Amino acid sequence: MPEKRYLLTPGPTPVPPAVLAALSEQVLHHRGPDFREIYARCLGRLAAVARTEGDVLLFTTPGTGALESAVANVLSPGDRAVVVSAGYFGERWAELVDAYGGDLVHVRYAWGETPEPADLRLALADAGGARAVFLTHSETSTGVVVDLPALAAPAREAGALVVVDAVSSLGAVPLETDEWGVDVVASGSQKALMAPPGLSLVAVSPAALKAARGSASPRYLLDWERTRRAQEKLDPPVTPAVSLVRALDVALGLILDEGLDAVFERHVRLGRACREGAKAMGLELFSPDEDRSAVVTAIRAPEPVDPAELLLVLRDRFGIQLVGGQGELKGRIFRIGHIGWFDVFDVATALAGVELVLAELGAEVDRGRAVSRALEVYEAPMGSFTGAGRREGSV
Amino acid sequence: MPEKRYLLTPGPTPVPPAVLAALSEQVLHHRGPDFREIYARCLGRLAAVARTEGDVLLFTTPGTGALESAVANVLSPGDRAVVVSAGYFGERWAELVDAYGGDLVHVRYAWGETPEPADLRLALADAGGARAVFLTHSETSTGVVVDLPALAAPAREAGALVVVDAVSSLGAVPLETDEWGVDVVASGSQKALMAPPGLSLVAVSPAALKAARGSASPRYLLDWERTRRAQEKLDPPVTPAVSLVRALDVALGLILDEGLDAVFERHVRLGRACREGAKAMGLELFSPDEDRSAVVTAIRAPEPVDPAELLLVLRDRFGIQLVGGQGELKGRIFRIGHIGWFDVFDVATALAGVELVLAELGAEVDRGRAVSRALEVYEAPMGSFTGAGRREGSV
Repeated sequence: MPEKRYLLTPGPTPVPPAVLAALSEQVLHHRGPDFREIYARCLGRLAAVARTEGDVLLFTTPGTGALESAVANVLSPGDRAVVVSAGYFGERWAELVDAYGGDLVHVRYAWGETPEPADLRLALADAGGARAVFLTHSETSTGVVVDLPALAAPAREAGALVVVDAVSSLGAVPLETDEWGVDVVASGSQKALMAPPGLSLVAVSPAALKAARGSASPRYLLDWERTRRAQEKLDPPVTPAVSLVRALDVALGLILDEGLDAVFERHVRLGRACREGAKAMGLELFSPDEDRSAVVTAIRAPEPVDPAELLLVLRDRFGIQLVGGQGELKGRIFRIGHIGWFDVFDVATALAGVELVLAELGAEVDRGRAVSRALEVYEAPMGSFTGAGRREGSV
Repeated sequence: MPEKRYLLTPGPTPVPPAVLAALSEQVLHHRGPDFREIYARCLGRLAAVARTEGDVLLFTTPGTGALESAVANVLSPGDRAVVVSAGYFGERWAELVDAYGGDLVHVRYAWGETPEPADLRLALADAGGARAVFLTHSETSTGVVVDLPALAAPAREAGALVVVDAVSSLGAVPLETDEWGVDVVASGSQKALMAPPGLSLVAVSPAALKAARGSASPRYLLDWERTRRAQEKLDPPVTPAVSLVRALDVALGLILDEGLDAVFERHVRLGRACREGAKAMGLELFSPDEDRSAVVTAIRAPEPVDPAELLLVLRDRFGIQLVGGQGELKGRIFRIGHIGWFDVFDVATALAGVELVLAELGAEVDRGRAVSRALEVYEAPMGSFTGAGRREGSV
């Protein structure tokens, strides 16, 4: 393998130099004034990024810990829970509800489909009495980003709490927690938030906190009320990963300095560039060809290529790390991530490497068009772009 | 506050420059070959430090996560669990057993006492049918390190699993997991292991793993069997804190290079130096005056000093971070930690600062003796030291 690495996956993502510099600072005591200042600022920045006036609870766990905390705090054993799934991470909600003894109502789509509000409305009416609806904002395994306010509406109408996996969407695509009436937004540090993995967070509404106080599910580390009370005093309930909190604080500062709207626009442009570049070399997209899908681009592996071989060659020869399909999509697709500390030349690197290796592996690809098309699309004024939705002949 | 910081607490502890350098490396993908190599080596080094041929499971959580995983995997609701407690962290075992609906038998000592095997034997006979005994190897809140093999024996005789909180002891004092028949050793990255907080681990015996497969307690992230199966393939079950794993791996390498026996001897010398220094200025120890208590030295605040004021002055004027008492010991003691990346000059810094500030706050202290006594004791050959156990006139 060459020495240089290109981490072009939808998480963990590469982190900016200022974040690495913060990581390499000496460890601080978690109850001293140095850390308290960072902790307070980081929690405030998280609320700003999550667009909420409510509490954002921070945990030292992988993103899955935030998801698990939602299930453990919102549900008691036997509570009815509607899970909407259309991919690997949607299925994880179902696994978690099962693990905690919830009464699972599973609105299950084929992987890669986009969940529809009408289906959820029907399922909620059929089931009745759901305590919570578990949604996936960005299904990282397929590249689909759902229309979240449209999906949240029927859940709210049914009186259920709206719980959203935003692990790969928070900080990449718009998510108006308060305005859209989302009760729980669960996310992690290692994706669009541009920090290393190891921290997770939940933005929680007053209704969600009230439900948590009544939940009979066993939990300690992931208990919301204990965490909320401790955060209120800026006195962490247990020793947090102080170095990661410091790094996340710096990363959030960079995001807010760039401005959330600018960050979201950059992600739309990156998604356009990746999709148009892939199409320009004649590849077929698996993820939707629309601006909303700005997190990860999933591409069907062209005949006769095994995507596992493509990924291995890219990695071992060029140090380029992409990812394949998860679960039932293994062997059928490969994915290019473009969230967080990414610009168009990262996308260009991915496309250039893919183009070369696919050709070598015997696929028919149009050479020499992808990178220039990606840059052209990225640079075009936002409103002038008309490529989305046209899978053919877009160059 | 001055710019320079002296983190002299029993956790988090300062980490060596090589560990900070590892932290500041760019994030790696958790399923790529770069990380797999680090992951495999780190798991192997953890087993070497924990002195076990069995599995060591690594989690991205604070140390409390390792403790919680033990309760969640070993106990089903209603299972009888004996908790031996003599301080803040012993009480945490009881809280965790309660949180998971265990049938708690609490062998409860006054804080600062040293638990005795005979009491445990009696409690086990009285209770009958205990599934597990939960012990605290080093009670960080009081400075007591128990005679672990002696306490493990009655638990094993009663057919109970032996579960040990070794958060502040692993890597500081001897812990022979396999030889002593300990089923579960739970620890964290941020104490004697010289890495930042954010990782936790459990060394688990085959019997403990078997119990876990039968446990009905809900859990996902902390599930042992899922984690074990994933580690077997070096394919993490969720995205771990890759930067922290990298840092821990480097820190463990430093420990094993120094050699476990040399590390333990250094900690014994540090403990002696701290205790003798404190006594030399006329202070009364709260923690036992014995070689085994090599983790943290707890000292009674002399009249008329409020330890909170001592700590504030030390911190704000000199950047020296010590800690006070926890729970019921608040306002009565202060503690100097000396585990991990510590040498005698760290202890000397703590003693020198304490001496000056105590005198300023009106306590009667012998000036000018503590630091030289600490260095003298630290440098004395291991066998020649006769200070321990003599609280008076040891200079």
